Amino acid sequence: MKSEIIAIGSEMLTPFRQDTNSLHLTEKLNDLGVTVAFKTIVGDRRKDLVNAIRAALGRTDLVVIMGGLGPTEDDLTREAVAEALSLTLRRDSGQVSALAARTAALRLPMPVNNLKQADVLEGAMLLPNPNGSAPGQWLDTTWQSYRKLMALLPGPPHECLPLFDAECLPRLRQLLPERHIARRTLRAAMIPESQADKLLAPIYSTYKDIETTILAHGGDIQLILLCSKANAVLAQRRVDELAGRMEEALDDWLYSSGGESSDTSESLEQIVLYYLGLRQATLAVAESCTGGMIAERLTSVPGSSRAFLGGAVVYSNELKTAFAGVPPELIASHGAVSHEVAEALASGIRHSTGATLGLGVTGIAGPTGGSAEKPVGLVYIALSDAQRTDVVEKHFQGGRDYIRQYATQQALDLIRRRLR
Amino acid sequence: MKSEIIAIGSEMLTPFRQDTNSLHLTEKLNDLGVTVAFKTIVGDRRKDLVNAIRAALGRTDLVVIMGGLGPTEDDLTREAVAEALSLTLRRDSGQVSALAARTAALRLPMPVNNLKQADVLEGAMLLPNPNGSAPGQWLDTTWQSYRKLMALLPGPPHECLPLFDAECLPRLRQLLPERHIARRTLRAAMIPESQADKLLAPIYSTYKDIETTILAHGGDIQLILLCSKANAVLAQRRVDELAGRMEEALDDWLYSSGGESSDTSESLEQIVLYYLGLRQATLAVAESCTGGMIAERLTSVPGSSRAFLGGAVVYSNELKTAFAGVPPELIASHGAVSHEVAEALASGIRHSTGATLGLGVTGIAGPTGGSAEKPVGLVYIALSDAQRTDVVEKHFQGGRDYIRQYATQQALDLIRRRLR
Repeated sequence: MKSEIIAIGSEMLTPFRQDTNSLHLTEKLNDLGVTVAFKTIVGDRRKDLVNAIRAALGRTDLVVIMGGLGPTEDDLTREAVAEALSLTLRRDSGQVSALAARTAALRLPMPVNNLKQADVLEGAMLLPNPNGSAPGQWLDTTWQSYRKLMALLPGPPHECLPLFDAECLPRLRQLLPERHIARRTLRAAMIPESQADKLLAPIYSTYKDIETTILAHGGDIQLILLCSKANAVLAQRRVDELAGRMEEALDDWLYSSGGESSDTSESLEQIVLYYLGLRQATLAVAESCTGGMIAERLTSVPGSSRAFLGGAVVYSNELKTAFAGVPPELIASHGAVSHEVAEALASGIRHSTGATLGLGVTGIAGPTGGSAEKPVGLVYIALSDAQRTDVVEKHFQGGRDYIRQYATQQALDLIRRRLR
Repeated sequence: MKSEIIAIGSEMLTPFRQDTNSLHLTEKLNDLGVTVAFKTIVGDRRKDLVNAIRAALGRTDLVVIMGGLGPTEDDLTREAVAEALSLTLRRDSGQVSALAARTAALRLPMPVNNLKQADVLEGAMLLPNPNGSAPGQWLDTTWQSYRKLMALLPGPPHECLPLFDAECLPRLRQLLPERHIARRTLRAAMIPESQADKLLAPIYSTYKDIETTILAHGGDIQLILLCSKANAVLAQRRVDELAGRMEEALDDWLYSSGGESSDTSESLEQIVLYYLGLRQATLAVAESCTGGMIAERLTSVPGSSRAFLGGAVVYSNELKTAFAGVPPELIASHGAVSHEVAEALASGIRHSTGATLGLGVTGIAGPTGGSAEKPVGLVYIALSDAQRTDVVEKHFQGGRDYIRQYATQQALDLIRRRLR
């Protein structure tokens, strides 16, 4: 089955806002074996709406329309669908009472326009909307002698998405042959996207029945495997087989594979905290150029306080000394961005906090402050435990944000590799 | 002039990726007075492409198509446009030589498919693409006896956007009556969106010639005013007049207005750093529940090291004592999340770093750790200077991320208000 998603609202045709509901809808539709062939975004002009609806009816079997069901003059979806399909609208008396009750409960006057929300398309079923005043509508109809399905949903995500899941998915499931979806997500750190694809394409391209998506951001790679079959066991077996081969190829770039038959995966910060817990170890960080980003990522995980003690953002040289005990002479002789200072930050923060592991980061995030000898993008990351301190030197290319993100990812990956 | 933007590529019909190029194109088109009436996203199937292009031609005057110009079998835009408009394609010999030279320079073999990129629509002009191998195309043609403009652009943002700006905008500008755009962005902190709108709607709704957009995120409100007129001075005067009235209404919620005739505005962290510089003051922070987020936002600004010394992420009670000198008895008697500990964190971090101002934050970000007396969302924020320490108590509703974001925004706003 081929579908089109239409998002209605002039605000989504400005430079500031995007439709995001359709991402959720697409995932759920794909799970049922329904292809999303088109997405259309259209404003609140009735003529444009009718045009978009007719175009969608002409090229797909299922049309999901979001938005334009409210009580204002700009809410024209019901009228436009009626016009596009040459259907009448009738005012539903049950809905009129429900609207009146809702308005009374909120102690608001009842504007006449409100009653528009009780208008139902000829032949449509009303879909209850527990999170708003406008109900959805479901239409199973014939257009130009083809059967067409149409769902009208409210636009706000907290109304649209639950309503779609509760009311539209079960109806579609009944109409479609049963499909079973197996999913796996693998995650790898600090492998360049092109290298990952070169390594993995020869493998995943031989699994024609599995859809593989690679998402890359800030040194983090997600590999999403999806297989849809009539037989659930077979779908899962295929996905687990491909996942196994990819895990092997990725070797120690891989940090999270969710385990067989699981479609969830952990973030790098979750993995680091997991390993810390497993080793009954604690961590403290001394961050210069990352300026708190490493601590922020670790503390974004609920329960991180069990293993993450905290640390210091040592932007000034004085704080490098005060909080991580870096000798001022060391900074004077080697510079704040140096192998030696990174090492001293890591072992120093470990001592001043009593953590099992100390991490130190110093670098030049730019855009200024670089030199020929120490260019923007140069970052030293050090990790210290009771036995030893390792230091890595990295040269990241890109803007300030990019350098800080990559340095953070590299630092977390260094901890993961030590604890693995 | 009415336009449609078509983004081509099956990856944008998955749950994982979205078209973002169109936001930039929309802004530039609006500046010329061109309305974006529709956006369509379509996959790599030729039949669907032809359908989408015909629908667009039937309802708009200008069709901008992004993607599908590469050398692979899935790149079908040229062929689809030719079919939709019943035009022929000719292979451009100059382009063939250029492609051969480019391939030779990269020391790659020349795949036969590559030559597709030299195919030009009958009557089209080639648009040079300095950032990739596929040139764009510009077509000024007639379809069903109406004049239609069409731009074919490559999909990757770093190719598409510069090409559009360099080649399409000047051509459109020549065809359209001159318009002048005036813009202002105002920013306010910690005022709820509904309250801002209640305050401002009676004002901006009387300026029918100005488009006002309100964007809200994490306690930050942006008000974007846009006025387009034939006369530049008049457009600017109107925008500045409305901005002035909104500034007055927002009173001290407002933190940035860019100043008259400026269309840039500063972020809250930039404003805080600006005030610190102005007062020749320095800042250090002791963060518990925000876990580094305040430091991260401040250090995201280039040059922040001049006024921001750094600070401590004091997740454990021991670090509250070690780095900010909070007496263990104080924590034992009042709890780590308390008015008293926030106060001690602020004055303690000020003393241990020698900063002019010390900020302390402690709270319960959840999802666990709350109690009836101290629920999830309770946050204390304290700011200390040589004269005094102020403490504010806040109760934020929402998830862990939301609470941390609001606490960070509130903390930065507290510093702003002290320094103003």
